[in-house]
Amino acid sequence: MNQPPSPAHPSAGGGLETHPFDQALLMTPEHDGSVQAQAHPAYWNMVGPYGGVTAAQMLQAVLQHPEVLGDPISMTVNFAGPVQAGNLRIEAVPARTNRSTQHWTVHMGQRNAEGLFEISTTATVITAVRRETFSVDDIPKPAMPAPSTCERYDTRKSMEWLNRYDMRVVQGAIPKAWDDSEQESITQLWVRDDPPRPLDFAALAALCDVFYPRIWLRRARQVPAGTVGMTVYFHADRAQLAKQGNQHLLAQASAQTFRNGFFDQTAQLWDSEGELLATSHQIVYYKA
Amino acid sequence: MNQPPSPAHPSAGGGLETHPFDQALLMTPEHDGSVQAQAHPAYWNMVGPYGGVTAAQMLQAVLQHPEVLGDPISMTVNFAGPVQAGNLRIEAVPARTNRSTQHWTVHMGQRNAEGLFEISTTATVITAVRRETFSVDDIPKPAMPAPSTCERYDTRKSMEWLNRYDMRVVQGAIPKAWDDSEQESITQLWVRDDPPRPLDFAALAALCDVFYPRIWLRRARQVPAGTVGMTVYFHADRAQLAKQGNQHLLAQASAQTFRNGFFDQTAQLWDSEGELLATSHQIVYYKA
Repeated sequence: MNQPPSPAHPSAGGGLETHPFDQALLMTPEHDGSVQAQAHPAYWNMVGPYGGVTAAQMLQAVLQHPEVLGDPISMTVNFAGPVQAGNLRIEAVPARTNRSTQHWTVHMGQRNAEGLFEISTTATVITAVRRETFSVDDIPKPAMPAPSTCERYDTRKSMEWLNRYDMRVVQGAIPKAWDDSEQESITQLWVRDDPPRPLDFAALAALCDVFYPRIWLRRARQVPAGTVGMTVYFHADRAQLAKQGNQHLLAQASAQTFRNGFFDQTAQLWDSEGELLATSHQIVYYKA
Repeated sequence: MNQPPSPAHPSAGGGLETHPFDQALLMTPEHDGSVQAQAHPAYWNMVGPYGGVTAAQMLQAVLQHPEVLGDPISMTVNFAGPVQAGNLRIEAVPARTNRSTQHWTVHMGQRNAEGLFEISTTATVITAVRRETFSVDDIPKPAMPAPSTCERYDTRKSMEWLNRYDMRVVQGAIPKAWDDSEQESITQLWVRDDPPRPLDFAALAALCDVFYPRIWLRRARQVPAGTVGMTVYFHADRAQLAKQGNQHLLAQASAQTFRNGFFDQTAQLWDSEGELLATSHQIVYYKA
C-alpha cells in the first residue's frame, strides 16, 4: 500500500509544466467543507510522502480556506500515522477568530484497507494580520559562504523527494562512515526547491523538515528515526518572501537532547541575506 | 467578567489543605466525554488565569482520560481567546492510537455572556510508552549557583499567580528602569511551586510558561504582550520527576527574533542536577 502510483517527471528545463510542489498543493473542495488532495509521488520518502510536503498541505488547507484571516504565524503538525499513496482528505476548521488573529484545527486522513477513515495527521495553525513594529533578530547571523562554493548533495539513487531539493551542505553532512563516532549534532545547508520556485509560506513550512535525523549525526549510526511533531514559527511576511524569490536559503538544525527514544531538534532558516525567515522545532522518534 | 470569584488562601504552613495546583487540576467527567474544571483564582493573572495553568489543565484532561497510553512527549497549546472566571469545559479526543504513541486533540471553552459556547484554547498532545535507550543532553549544562544564594523575587502587590511560585533570578531579572536600553533577552531563574509540591508532568508544563515577556527585557520597555502558542517537549520520565521532587528547577528563556508584532521564545528547564526536564518554545504577541 505504500508504493506511489507512478514516478513524477518534473520539468527539468523550467518549462510550462506545473511545478510538482504546486501539484502537491492542489486541493479540490468537497461538499462537507473539507478538501481532497493527493499524496504526491514526486515527494515520496521511504514509506510515504516527505513529511515537509504533508506539513505544507496541512497549511495550504488553511491558506486556501475562504475564511482565512491574514498570514501564518505558527503551525504545529503531528505525524500521527503513515500516509498512503492516493487521495487525502484534509479538514481545516477555524476554532476561533479574533480581530487580528485566527486559530485553526486541521486533520488529514484517508480510508484504510478496511474502508474505515483513519486520521494520519493533526495540526493547529495560527494566522494573523501583522503590523510593522520594532523588529530585530536576536541570534547571531551565521557565516554564509556563497552557495556556489558548497558542493551539491548527490541525491541520485536516493529517495524521490530528495531530488526535489538542491541542497548544499556547509557543515554537518551525513556521516560517510557509520562508525559510532560521537560528534556535534549541528547541520547547516543551503537549500532551495528544484526546479527553483519562488518561496511562499507552504514551501517554507516544507523546508523546515529538510534535515536528516540528528541522531544519525550525533552517533554516526543510522538507526530508525522519524519526526513525530514539528512546530514552525513564521517570521517572514510576504514582502520578505517575495524578495527572497527562488534563491537558496540557509537552514540550520541541532538537537538539544536525546532521551529514551525521542530527541528534540531546533532549527533556523535564514534568507539569502541572513535575516530569519522561520524558526522550527521537532520531536523525533529514534531507535538506538 | 474577568474578576476571579474570590482570592484563594493556600496553606502556607504545608497543612492538609489541597494544594491550589491540585485544585486547578480537579476535573469532573461529563456525560459527553468532556470534563469540567475551574479557572482557578489562586492562579489569576491580569485578565484571566495564568497561561501555564491553562496549559496544565489541557494536559491533565489527556492524562486523566481512561484511554491514555503512556506519558506525555509533546504538547502544543494555543491561547485562542480569553479565559473567564468560572466553569471550563475541556474535551480531549484520541485522534489516533498506535502501538506505542497516541495523538490527542484538545479544546477548552466556556459559555460567553450571550450563552454561546466559545473555544478559548486549542491543543495537541502526544503521549508515548518510552523505553530506555542511548540518551545524552546535547547543550551545555548551565552554571548553577545554589538557589539559596539567589534572592527570591518579591511578588507582593503583584498578580496572584506569581505568589504560587518561588522564583530566584540568576540573570535577566525584570528591568528596574523602563529606559529603552537594549540588552540580551536571556533570563535564568530557579523556580518551584509555592507551597512546594512534588513535580509532575502537569506542573512541568505550567512551569514552561513562567517567564515574563522577552520584549520587556530586550528593550527595557513594558509593552502589552501575551503568549499566543506554546510547545513543550517532555524529556523527563516519571523516575526523573520523582527524583526531582519539590526542589527548585533551573529555567532559562531567550528570544530568537522579534518581528512585526510576534517574537519567539526558546526555553530549557533543567532539574536540580543539571539534566534537562523539558524544552519549550513560544510565539508571543507584542505591541511596540
